[in-house]
Amino acid sequence: MVKVKIIVSYKEGVEDPEGLAIKKSLNLLNFNNVKNVTVSKLYEINIEGDSSSVKKEAEEMCDKLLVNPVIHKYKIEVEKI
Amino acid sequence: MVKVKIIVSYKEGVEDPEGLAIKKSLNLLNFNNVKNVTVSKLYEINIEGDSSSVKKEAEEMCDKLLVNPVIHKYKIEVEKI
Repeated sequence: MVKVKIIVSYKEGVEDPEGLAIKKSLNLLNFNNVKNVTVSKLYEINIEGDSSSVKKEAEEMCDKLLVNPVIHKYKIEVEKI
Repeated sequence: MVKVKIIVSYKEGVEDPEGLAIKKSLNLLNFNNVKNVTVSKLYEINIEGDSSSVKKEAEEMCDKLLVNPVIHKYKIEVEKI
């Protein structure tokens, strides 16, 4: 069994509406030293199989379902469990 | 300047509807060896100040805005940038 962690975040230059809203809210709550907030998604996927083939498979999952390549970038980490 | 990473995920035993939906979709896309999917949020917050006080401040942000303590757990990492 292998655990794959996929972090999907906005590309540089793409506006992150949720991050902006949270920054505003934090500032309103008197966290005035908050300068920037970004929000990403972290998918943790347990896959049966060995780690060699899994990274390629995870890339395929990103391309087919998890990532919109116009606005998102992603990072994949594989760990044995 | 300090970067705080806050990972907010569901507590053990709380149903993760988005994770379940993604698992189903991946299985339908013929990724049959996917056994479990969980989805978490990763907040990356840039804060002006030094790292000693920042962890406590980040906990306060979680309590006041980012986390619902009934269903969520969180993890905070601080790194200097």
